Amino acid sequence: MSGRLYGIGVGPGDPELLTLKAVRLIAEADVIAYPAPADGTESMARMIAGPHIPDGKTEIVIETPMIPGQFPANDVYDRYAVEIADHLNAGRSVAVLCEGDPFLYGSFMYLFGRLAADFESEVVPGVSSLGACAARAGQPLVSRNQVLTIVPAPLDEAELEARIAIADAVAIMKVGRHLDKVRAVLGKLGRLETAVYVERATLAGERVLPLTELKTERAPYFSMILARRAEAVDA
Amino acid sequence: MSGRLYGIGVGPGDPELLTLKAVRLIAEADVIAYPAPADGTESMARMIAGPHIPDGKTEIVIETPMIPGQFPANDVYDRYAVEIADHLNAGRSVAVLCEGDPFLYGSFMYLFGRLAADFESEVVPGVSSLGACAARAGQPLVSRNQVLTIVPAPLDEAELEARIAIADAVAIMKVGRHLDKVRAVLGKLGRLETAVYVERATLAGERVLPLTELKTERAPYFSMILARRAEAVDA
Repeated sequence: MSGRLYGIGVGPGDPELLTLKAVRLIAEADVIAYPAPADGTESMARMIAGPHIPDGKTEIVIETPMIPGQFPANDVYDRYAVEIADHLNAGRSVAVLCEGDPFLYGSFMYLFGRLAADFESEVVPGVSSLGACAARAGQPLVSRNQVLTIVPAPLDEAELEARIAIADAVAIMKVGRHLDKVRAVLGKLGRLETAVYVERATLAGERVLPLTELKTERAPYFSMILARRAEAVDA
Repeated sequence: MSGRLYGIGVGPGDPELLTLKAVRLIAEADVIAYPAPADGTESMARMIAGPHIPDGKTEIVIETPMIPGQFPANDVYDRYAVEIADHLNAGRSVAVLCEGDPFLYGSFMYLFGRLAADFESEVVPGVSSLGACAARAGQPLVSRNQVLTIVPAPLDEAELEARIAIADAVAIMKVGRHLDKVRAVLGKLGRLETAVYVERATLAGERVLPLTELKTERAPYFSMILARRAEAVDA
């Protein structure tokens, strides 16, 4: 009998934000896999789940080239899908760890797309960076019948502006080197004053401050900007 | 010294989707509070967290009138904020349980808005129904630089259409009696074929099916529709 494939959300950073189900499945799985930058930097997902990974597990490091502005090549996922399929075919369960929630911009979906038709699989949702950033900022995302739009900062300026203009609230992800562009768009739309910048939410080195007080030109990958229409703050 | 106020996300339904932090704080808090419909129906948040609530805790039922199309009156939150403040002033910590994530359409924000200026408070993010519905449907929400919009179904038809038309992916919340309107809009936009209906995700009685196969005219409150631009399915 084939092993089961799990995509496990490990949450935004604090190891205490893993779910009970994630902890149980990590303990039970035969093999633990997780993405890591190909440059040897530590895997964020492995770091978050670390306290819950029993010693002696077989681990697969999914080395992912991180080229700004580009997405990992399909051949990377093709290769790791084969390696994971070998374990599943041998009857071993494989838990793939995912930062935040697996299906919200998570790279697990590329493995899921390659393996879910052939193997029993289960996705375990996790606490997303979205909810974590709002919690740490002490700022509700949306209430009542408001619309929330999640926008990746790499979009071009006109597209960013169009998306943000009609949303009651926005969460701008993947800020990185797009910080200046985001600032310009929010300024144009009169939303700079309501914008909050959150970096490394729930992790050591967390920063939460009004965007207008942020003095850098570049943000790390793990940062987010939350902004609301001024009149939408009704909570 | 005053007690501390916690807003605790208990996740979408499965008690195993509570975070370790939620479980710890529920065990430690002096008082547990949670919303429940004023008609005597069981509190969903209490039901989810039930297995983790120690016997003998002081509990506050936040009775909330549920009138379709209306939001709870401010006087309800005014009254419960006073009751909670009395506990906090007496040095007792109060954990308010919230379905899903506290700051994503959660009613906790109304208590937070009334109490956070006067008392130490902390929001503990939880697994949202958004990630849970996507996980149970086996359908990624968004990848790469796609835009995700979260739209409450009670919006009027023209507004719904405008919001859905420009999003790569949408999650339509609070479907309830708006099911026919949502179907009409998705049909007009050519997104009916990609739409998935999810009811009671991760709970007993869960249903996941293509929207085109759903034969009712009304959906329960705990239901969601996920729909993507056909060409956006690239995972």
